[in-house]
Amino acid sequence: MASYYKDFREYLAVLEEKGKLRRIKRAINKDTEMHPLVRLQFRGGTESERTAFLFENVVDVKGVKYDMPVAVGCMAASKDIYALGMQCAPEEIGAKWGRALVKPIPPTVVSRGLVQEVVHAGTDLGTKFGLHSLPIPISTPGFDNAPYTTASHWVSRDPETGTRNLGNYRGQAKSPLRIGCCAGLGIRTHWKKWKKLGKKEMDAAIVIGVTPNLSYTATARVPEDVEEYGVAGGIAGAPVELVQCKTVDLQVPANAEIVIEGKMSTEELEMEGPFGEFPGFMAQRSLNLFMDVTCITHCVSPIYVAFISQFPPSESSVLRGVAREQLVRKFLSVDCKLKGIRQVSLHESTGSWGLCVVQIDQREGGKGGEVLKAMKGAKHHLSKWVVVVDDDINPQDADAVNWAMSFRVQPRRDTEVIDMYAMPLDPSLYRSGERIDMTNEGSGASAIMIDATRKWPYPPVSLPAQPYMEQALKIWKEEGLPALRLKEPWFGYSLGYWTEEDVEEANLALKGEHFQTGEKQAKSQRKKV
Amino acid sequence: MASYYKDFREYLAVLEEKGKLRRIKRAINKDTEMHPLVRLQFRGGTESERTAFLFENVVDVKGVKYDMPVAVGCMAASKDIYALGMQCAPEEIGAKWGRALVKPIPPTVVSRGLVQEVVHAGTDLGTKFGLHSLPIPISTPGFDNAPYTTASHWVSRDPETGTRNLGNYRGQAKSPLRIGCCAGLGIRTHWKKWKKLGKKEMDAAIVIGVTPNLSYTATARVPEDVEEYGVAGGIAGAPVELVQCKTVDLQVPANAEIVIEGKMSTEELEMEGPFGEFPGFMAQRSLNLFMDVTCITHCVSPIYVAFISQFPPSESSVLRGVAREQLVRKFLSVDCKLKGIRQVSLHESTGSWGLCVVQIDQREGGKGGEVLKAMKGAKHHLSKWVVVVDDDINPQDADAVNWAMSFRVQPRRDTEVIDMYAMPLDPSLYRSGERIDMTNEGSGASAIMIDATRKWPYPPVSLPAQPYMEQALKIWKEEGLPALRLKEPWFGYSLGYWTEEDVEEANLALKGEHFQTGEKQAKSQRKKV
Repeated sequence: MASYYKDFREYLAVLEEKGKLRRIKRAINKDTEMHPLVRLQFRGGTESERTAFLFENVVDVKGVKYDMPVAVGCMAASKDIYALGMQCAPEEIGAKWGRALVKPIPPTVVSRGLVQEVVHAGTDLGTKFGLHSLPIPISTPGFDNAPYTTASHWVSRDPETGTRNLGNYRGQAKSPLRIGCCAGLGIRTHWKKWKKLGKKEMDAAIVIGVTPNLSYTATARVPEDVEEYGVAGGIAGAPVELVQCKTVDLQVPANAEIVIEGKMSTEELEMEGPFGEFPGFMAQRSLNLFMDVTCITHCVSPIYVAFISQFPPSESSVLRGVAREQLVRKFLSVDCKLKGIRQVSLHESTGSWGLCVVQIDQREGGKGGEVLKAMKGAKHHLSKWVVVVDDDINPQDADAVNWAMSFRVQPRRDTEVIDMYAMPLDPSLYRSGERIDMTNEGSGASAIMIDATRKWPYPPVSLPAQPYMEQALKIWKEEGLPALRLKEPWFGYSLGYWTEEDVEEANLALKGEHFQTGEKQAKSQRKKV
Repeated sequence: MASYYKDFREYLAVLEEKGKLRRIKRAINKDTEMHPLVRLQFRGGTESERTAFLFENVVDVKGVKYDMPVAVGCMAASKDIYALGMQCAPEEIGAKWGRALVKPIPPTVVSRGLVQEVVHAGTDLGTKFGLHSLPIPISTPGFDNAPYTTASHWVSRDPETGTRNLGNYRGQAKSPLRIGCCAGLGIRTHWKKWKKLGKKEMDAAIVIGVTPNLSYTATARVPEDVEEYGVAGGIAGAPVELVQCKTVDLQVPANAEIVIEGKMSTEELEMEGPFGEFPGFMAQRSLNLFMDVTCITHCVSPIYVAFISQFPPSESSVLRGVAREQLVRKFLSVDCKLKGIRQVSLHESTGSWGLCVVQIDQREGGKGGEVLKAMKGAKHHLSKWVVVVDDDINPQDADAVNWAMSFRVQPRRDTEVIDMYAMPLDPSLYRSGERIDMTNEGSGASAIMIDATRKWPYPPVSLPAQPYMEQALKIWKEEGLPALRLKEPWFGYSLGYWTEEDVEEANLALKGEHFQTGEKQAKSQRKKV
């Protein structure tokens, strides 16, 4: 296997080589045109047509022209792109993620890195160079209240254990030297610890423009005691190289495009938002963390990188989905030691959060009830709707799942409502204008668990048996009828219950001898009522 | 408006004229090739490509050659075909059904009809001509235990009120003169009444090959006190013409292709099945009604007509779905007098039975809770999953519904499990081999009701506002990027909650003045914690 990408631009070259990058050379307004343009492919194109975009000529609403190009959708505009980032085939993503989770490779610290080729600090900072110098796009023009960083991986450190967190959170550009942080669980936990220790500030750094392994782990909910740097190393098959920050006591990827260093107050929160978020609604303004910038470093001629998030499906739903699917699968198979777990599918239409379908194989010992019992302990891996299906159901196909929900479920017997963690961006949980402090953990949320597996052997699927469908396919082609894209199932198959008498009668019918069956029914299968 | 189709073949000519009929001239084996061939279009084609088929050269597994052609998929292979049968545009089907339900036109009895041009009775019957003379196809070769009639509309009469039922039930060819009947609610109710009155037999007749209005009402669950003949008249805008049967006291459509008259025992049941059914599984053998044939009549050169049912989607899921959607809509709007009911959608993937999505408009007074309360009284119109959504959700789109289920539902607050009628073909309810008497009403079934409407005003949908998406579309086309098929929503829209401050800040951002917002946040929107 080739060695892993050494930096973001090496990866970008591969995207381009594979036809997965579009360069836009005309002037594009980062505030009004850029995200809407990339967004179109998520609302009007097929997944295989989606590409990353590189905007080479970026301007803003004030007419400012930026030297820095902007890359959007590079990490996960589609699963094909995600696979390129993983350096594997799309169907191998799961296994590769699984191995990296089980066997992380710790990072190494090196003395110098590309990301520190140019250092902005001291009096220059905030005047000659600041957040205003970065071409941060407005993601949801018309609704967002500022440009926000989206592919911003925040680094922080646990003051007790030293464990580093790399978590992807949006950042509101608030001034040339101040940026908001919509704090997720990882950084929030660290911040609370620093606060509890009586520290007035916490060191933090934002990393932008990295190799995909880092973006994949920064957007995943890796267990708290595991460093994302290590899992990223596991994906790459080699340690991630880190450099020491210039003004804070943290280490960041040596070959990143841009790093923003700073200090976060543990004594004050500041209003942040609204910003268009992944559930498909504008996240409301709320009290949140913020960082005062102490230094910005970058390589020579950096590329600014943004995710396209907001309404699902989007890059963020692919990012969230692919990793979470593997984390849930690992949780069920490895941590809970359950047998027969085949696939886990998070539906993109639900922001890769709302609907989680677990496919099991009962013949390999998979049991719907056990999966649901285990999922109750899944904490932050829980989805609002968890559905377990059999191996003949494609868990990614909403219609197939609905078929299973219709004829393999009795709601009173097979569904259960349980408590779940409160997802702060869920508008069904908080009345608009009600929730204002994003650092408080909420409560009152619930999830529903559905066992849509067969509870006993079923009769075969009601489609003609395979030989007859194959013969029909031959006739179809000979007759020159329109091309078909067959969807499974397209012939009947066994689901465990089919008696010898059933076999005999079906065979008689195919010999034209079905009146024999009728005669039997008249003689011995009548009943007085 | 043109007058309604006078008979089945006039309708068939219109199908052909509109490009919705394929003639197959080669010899086709009705037992092994016919249904598999038509089935392919449901597993591999798009709905708009689906057509009816007319098989002009029909043979069977014994090498018998039939004079009679067989038509399959004529009534509802797609909604476009259904609309041709209704003589209206697809989007007008609902309104036309609604009017026919509210204003049925009673049938008239005429002295002679095409269907009695040829009469087989007396000694000829069962030898020279019988059920074996009809080219009844095997629907699910490899699993079905006989050829079954599928577009067989059974006529019976209520012994107390005289109300006639026209109900579509499958019929197992058991002998040249005996046919099974998988009795649905309508005929079952009549049969029980005849039995209760001490009558040993009930008159019955099977009608095959009619104008679409009759097939649409025969496959719908029209209220018990309403005659399908009348609703069919309402659809046609003119009374259905009936003739008196030759050997039983019933009236049948005068211009049908084929009528099979007979007597049903009220003292005995007979085993029937297995047969591939609409939930997607082989329905198991069970005790059921049967009819001894007393006469067969048909027009000169009749055409045999079959539905394609079995695994969804199929013709039967369109038939069931379209009518049931209108019956539910009428139940909610007219019978329950609820406001703001917009659409009802039964998902084909669930056999147009498992998942029912009701779309309401809250601005017009629609209320999710009221719909669910009403649906509890819907009896046989209930689906296992009932979901109420807002008017911005496309109820036919499983992904859109799942989005609503993810972010507009709190399961503990918004779901409720209730009792429902036992659907005898639901394999999740009966352990395989367990249920054997289809005339017994079952129990123990449940349904789940989900209110997926917004419980309070929501922030806007997180997509760029319309002007920015339109500008992006212009750039997209100018850049020559791949053609788009935009799916709604493709720009952000209001859902009731958006403050003046939100508007101001979004406008500032689009002027590049977002640091003003940052300054405000620093000055007045900080909070000590």
